[in-house]
Amino acid sequence: MKRSELVADTAITLLAERGMRGLTHRAVDEAAGLPPGSTSNLARTRAALLELTLSRLTELEIHALGPAYTTARNGTLGAQAGMADTVAEGLHIQIRDRRRALARYELALEATRRPELREIYDAAGSRFRDPAVALLAAQGSRDPVRHARQLVAFSEGLMFDAIVGAGGTPTFEELRQAVEDFLAGMLGRPSRGP
Amino acid sequence: MKRSELVADTAITLLAERGMRGLTHRAVDEAAGLPPGSTSNLARTRAALLELTLSRLTELEIHALGPAYTTARNGTLGAQAGMADTVAEGLHIQIRDRRRALARYELALEATRRPELREIYDAAGSRFRDPAVALLAAQGSRDPVRHARQLVAFSEGLMFDAIVGAGGTPTFEELRQAVEDFLAGMLGRPSRGP
Repeated sequence: MKRSELVADTAITLLAERGMRGLTHRAVDEAAGLPPGSTSNLARTRAALLELTLSRLTELEIHALGPAYTTARNGTLGAQAGMADTVAEGLHIQIRDRRRALARYELALEATRRPELREIYDAAGSRFRDPAVALLAAQGSRDPVRHARQLVAFSEGLMFDAIVGAGGTPTFEELRQAVEDFLAGMLGRPSRGP
Repeated sequence: MKRSELVADTAITLLAERGMRGLTHRAVDEAAGLPPGSTSNLARTRAALLELTLSRLTELEIHALGPAYTTARNGTLGAQAGMADTVAEGLHIQIRDRRRALARYELALEATRRPELREIYDAAGSRFRDPAVALLAAQGSRDPVRHARQLVAFSEGLMFDAIVGAGGTPTFEELRQAVEDFLAGMLGRPSRGP
């Protein structure tokens, strides 16, 4: 593993466990077992450290999605049930890793206060939004851009509720049913039911 | 305004503008124009300050919702369109106040690390979830508890996307259409369309 990856991975863990207050260059050095100053050498400023961390986080998320991401990006699905399965699978993977999800929320909030981080956050967002547009267009959506925004919002909400909310972690089947109900309404088709 | 309200309101503003790192007892004193030590006198520990702030925030959110909240809680709606209007109105009100929304996200993340804050966050959540159950039951949902969880998740996602995401602030009509599509899928009825 490259040192920059070790630093970014450690920053992700610190963000999840201690929040934005717990992320400092020194804390990363200590938690990663690196000599003092190592993180500063890689990312001089706080902004640089945050940008490195967010870029790495996006790569990790897309890597974790694996085939579900590729399928979505290529729009290669035949049926609504297949789409619900693919989206639910992606959500299930993302929700399983609370650490990544919590770090992303911390960075999302920080991005509202740092324009340079905001650019990276928005670019990362389009790597999830664009496949959703392709997928919905292939499914016959009348308005794939609007529908993709709704699908991403719904996915964000299911994740946020699972990670931060009171209801606990949903099963794959609960996620699949929720996504299928949602797609049925948006695409104007009947849901298969529970 | 009571001093505890002034302190909590100032803490909400600081959380939105500077994040969890920017919230300290001293920063609240300064930003509120209070003598040094005032915030500590009211809320001795950091935990106490966070709890005071979250309780106040929940009251402010419910107060801001006004009639939309009362309508939802009492389940007094006649038609699906009426429900989409009510939910969209509530979302529109919440999204307009970025300050409150950002502060709530900061507190939600902190609640994952503080069990005592978590209890307050979950109790606050039920003040939004319970009316959603009542509303969906009145609309003939076959599974109002599950559907309410999905509706709350969808609402969270639309809010998160509007406040933090790249897409900008949705109009009332965009929110209404999104909620109506969503309800149509969940309740198995046709959407009125755009």
